[in-house]
Amino acid sequence: MLAKIDGHPFGGIQLTGERFPLAEVRMVAPMLPSKVVAIGRNYADHVKEMGNDVPSEPIMFLKPSTSVIGHGEAVAYPQGLTERVDFEGELAVVIGRLCREVPAERAKDVIFGYTCANDVTARDLQKRDVQFTRAKGFDTFCPLGPWIETDLDASDLALTTTVNGELRQSGRTSQLLFDIPTLIAHVTAVMTLLPGDVLLTGTPAGVGPLTPGDEVSVGIEGIGTLTNRVVSRD
Amino acid sequence: MLAKIDGHPFGGIQLTGERFPLAEVRMVAPMLPSKVVAIGRNYADHVKEMGNDVPSEPIMFLKPSTSVIGHGEAVAYPQGLTERVDFEGELAVVIGRLCREVPAERAKDVIFGYTCANDVTARDLQKRDVQFTRAKGFDTFCPLGPWIETDLDASDLALTTTVNGELRQSGRTSQLLFDIPTLIAHVTAVMTLLPGDVLLTGTPAGVGPLTPGDEVSVGIEGIGTLTNRVVSRD
Repeated sequence: MLAKIDGHPFGGIQLTGERFPLAEVRMVAPMLPSKVVAIGRNYADHVKEMGNDVPSEPIMFLKPSTSVIGHGEAVAYPQGLTERVDFEGELAVVIGRLCREVPAERAKDVIFGYTCANDVTARDLQKRDVQFTRAKGFDTFCPLGPWIETDLDASDLALTTTVNGELRQSGRTSQLLFDIPTLIAHVTAVMTLLPGDVLLTGTPAGVGPLTPGDEVSVGIEGIGTLTNRVVSRD
Repeated sequence: MLAKIDGHPFGGIQLTGERFPLAEVRMVAPMLPSKVVAIGRNYADHVKEMGNDVPSEPIMFLKPSTSVIGHGEAVAYPQGLTERVDFEGELAVVIGRLCREVPAERAKDVIFGYTCANDVTARDLQKRDVQFTRAKGFDTFCPLGPWIETDLDASDLALTTTVNGELRQSGRTSQLLFDIPTLIAHVTAVMTLLPGDVLLTGTPAGVGPLTPGDEVSVGIEGIGTLTNRVVSRD
């Protein structure tokens, strides 16, 4: 069941008393981020499977707000432009207030909550371009949801990704090379974050290809499961 | 003199009849872009000065909306995080309507106008990170302005950058390796653009360092001059 709220989640909210069965509701992304800041190579086993070196500092990139979709919405496979689209299940941190130059020890003050993310990536374009922007910036390549969990210790959560029900990724957020407070300090030393902005914390090993017709789910302990099917863009 | 308008520039506008002397007005960025899509290595002479190869496709990256400032606002030099901050004078294209998969021959239909841009870059971080996001994503690292010129043929305009009045960059937009229609087709094949989104078209040769106290100006024929001073961040 879903309970309806009044007000803005980054201000104050009140329960209206209305409730709806989950199955009868179409979910949209639980925020409209002004930006999605993502971190690459933040799990050692994924760094290894990609043949990369462990970074000495977090590797930061941006996904455009136009790439965001919600739970149950379709990932559009841009056929003709890429021949390899991969899932990357990730823990997403949702920022609750305008902040800059946040020390790691105060990072929890700027976190509104957590959700599941899929950092969908055209792997062939990522390799060809070096810059990640095109490969990770297609419309629909940033599923977020199904909702924001605001009361959670995110330091050691199980994260799994399945494709058509088959387990493909299994990690724990305790394996992050750079933990969430370190990432928030690193990112906010560069750019101001706004309420609703999203930080993707990286993906564990097991990334692999999607094809139209697939159903991909990212599940995180204490949050829920984000499921999206893949369709051809045209 | 500035003439006051009523209405939204991406809808319809009317002149109110009120006029103000330019010197009495503080300029802000002439749009609030949801995203700034930028193109690297798009002038052959700049590709050569950086020791890079001419790309076979446009190289795309994003600058966050939080990096945007207007004419007359200060570029904040993040001392302690970088030892080399460069100017990059560029022609900026302002998008006028929601668009995706725009063919090159229809690109002019989605262009609202043009302005001057400075793609400020922490050159040492750009080299260290490989991904451009941190180096080009600092708050204040995307001066745009002084206004949007809506009636202009942008195919062969002189572009100059000066630092403290001294000429440092001099190019023409006819030297773009990938022209504006090609860039719009390339970008919109990947991501939907929204009204007010900005496309930076690349910088000609002559990029170089800024230090606190400098005044940097990007001037483009038919548009005007974007001037910003550099200050220490703290």
